[in-house]
Amino acid sequence: MGGDFAPAETVRGALAAQRAAGVTPLLVGDEAALRAQLDAEGGEAAPWQIVHVPEAVAMDEHAVEAVRSRRPTSIRKAAEMLKANEVDAVVTMGHTGAAVAAGVLIVGRLPDVERPGLGVLLPAHDPRPLLIDVGANAEARPRHLVQFAVMGRVYQERLQGIENPRVGLLSIGEEESKGNSLVHEAAAMLASGGFNYVGHVDPAHIFHDEADVIVCDGFTGNVVIKTAEATAEYAFGELRAEVVKRPLAKLAALGLRPALRALRRRIDYAEIGATPLLGLKGLLLIGHGRSKAPAVTNALLAADRAVRAQLVPTIASGLESATT
Amino acid sequence: MGGDFAPAETVRGALAAQRAAGVTPLLVGDEAALRAQLDAEGGEAAPWQIVHVPEAVAMDEHAVEAVRSRRPTSIRKAAEMLKANEVDAVVTMGHTGAAVAAGVLIVGRLPDVERPGLGVLLPAHDPRPLLIDVGANAEARPRHLVQFAVMGRVYQERLQGIENPRVGLLSIGEEESKGNSLVHEAAAMLASGGFNYVGHVDPAHIFHDEADVIVCDGFTGNVVIKTAEATAEYAFGELRAEVVKRPLAKLAALGLRPALRALRRRIDYAEIGATPLLGLKGLLLIGHGRSKAPAVTNALLAADRAVRAQLVPTIASGLESATT
Repeated sequence: MGGDFAPAETVRGALAAQRAAGVTPLLVGDEAALRAQLDAEGGEAAPWQIVHVPEAVAMDEHAVEAVRSRRPTSIRKAAEMLKANEVDAVVTMGHTGAAVAAGVLIVGRLPDVERPGLGVLLPAHDPRPLLIDVGANAEARPRHLVQFAVMGRVYQERLQGIENPRVGLLSIGEEESKGNSLVHEAAAMLASGGFNYVGHVDPAHIFHDEADVIVCDGFTGNVVIKTAEATAEYAFGELRAEVVKRPLAKLAALGLRPALRALRRRIDYAEIGATPLLGLKGLLLIGHGRSKAPAVTNALLAADRAVRAQLVPTIASGLESATT
Repeated sequence: MGGDFAPAETVRGALAAQRAAGVTPLLVGDEAALRAQLDAEGGEAAPWQIVHVPEAVAMDEHAVEAVRSRRPTSIRKAAEMLKANEVDAVVTMGHTGAAVAAGVLIVGRLPDVERPGLGVLLPAHDPRPLLIDVGANAEARPRHLVQFAVMGRVYQERLQGIENPRVGLLSIGEEESKGNSLVHEAAAMLASGGFNYVGHVDPAHIFHDEADVIVCDGFTGNVVIKTAEATAEYAFGELRAEVVKRPLAKLAALGLRPALRALRRRIDYAEIGATPLLGLKGLLLIGHGRSKAPAVTNALLAADRAVRAQLVPTIASGLESATT
């Protein structure tokens, strides 16, 4: 029920996931609204399970309070079902903070994880690099960055088949002397931590092929993805404004539409699907609030793949061996 | 002599500044190379003063060591002349770290400034917002952000004529509860510091018209401008790749060239000129290493305007009244 376009786009995405890959998610939310949407889209009623929870966390609510209050909401119910092993994974396009809070407070952290990390696959070269943390926590200690590296490495091995993933540390400037004290301390720990460590990755090079896992504190990671999104939006908006001024360019732009659409699919965060909150005892994927049906479908398929790849148990044993 | 295209583009930019506005900068660098370039470009020999310093700081040198070593370099000489009031301003397209180090160690800080801040005008709406600090220091305390706000406010008043500039604080999320501890402490100081304070500015909104001065620590600011640059480059590179695949799009792209060129001029950092290192006893402007002649010209004209607007003395008195 969360996100800007629920339940229309979430239900549409769920139906497409069923049709494309036989994944039939259990839907948690307002039953009447979900059922009506399923009917409108021609979804067969029989195989769909709906867990009726009328309320959802609103996008402007305080995340931790919304979860702590124990008010029954769709994200709380979904997290409780994950905790109770009634589902294998939870996918949400709703309030990110509420999802993180539900993950930590209800699903719970793995024994060796102090802070879960939200990873996002950057829309760069294939296989895409994972940037972690992009905002599960605003503050991080150097050892948290090491934990992000362990979890990100497992993710890239299991889900993108990357052997011995390269681990980089986001910092300003390539030289080791550059960066703040968090970066300096984390660099020393990563260099001696048994990683395929490639050193600093400058933000100027995040779309280059320098590392498979790029770790940073959640404040910085959130700044990166939001700045990237804002810049892409601004640049294309300004391009449109320049085109509209010029009759010839307006005509020419028609011929460019397929190329622009392909590019948008490639770089739009809303198309990526959802990103896993790594470090929990269960599999929780968080998508962009602006996700439309294709992103919801991609998120559900990503959850399915992560379950089959045993992502969470592999992270648990990866962390155990890293800390012993 | 610094930057990727010196001395060819720097000399070309200086000549254009002279022709456009009668600003004839004194050139500091290798005299033979500079003189040859001036001759090649048809610059009249008479009014040009050249201070001969054969060496420049290389882009891969350690900044502070390069300056501390007292080795005679063009940036050291220029900073010494600024300190001695032999010039009114220094403009460099060279090593940013070396320029900052020369500014702090040679020109010196104003009495109430603990850390100078590098400000950059974001390529957004007009008048452009100033983001400060974008990398003069990797670490900042809350009170440094307040000093950046005082200096940024004076800059926007004096150079862009903005009355009572709005001051914002870069943070993830608009809500006051969001952000890290630096943000929380700085927010409290800014809110009670006599500013026209507008609260948090989310990176997703940096190109919106929310504030005239946006303060942050230099690590975060550097991440913002490098991510923005990397994203714009990546997006246009990918667009080109998609266009090349499609014969019709290739043709259409020709009609779009003027619009693309106008956009590039608008958003390219290299076109902006140079940004002032605020908080020094003299006026030092630092440009992008990739600056071409138009950026050099813009930087020199910006320096000229800043001198006439009494930027440095006004900042000095602004800081004094803010701290008393």
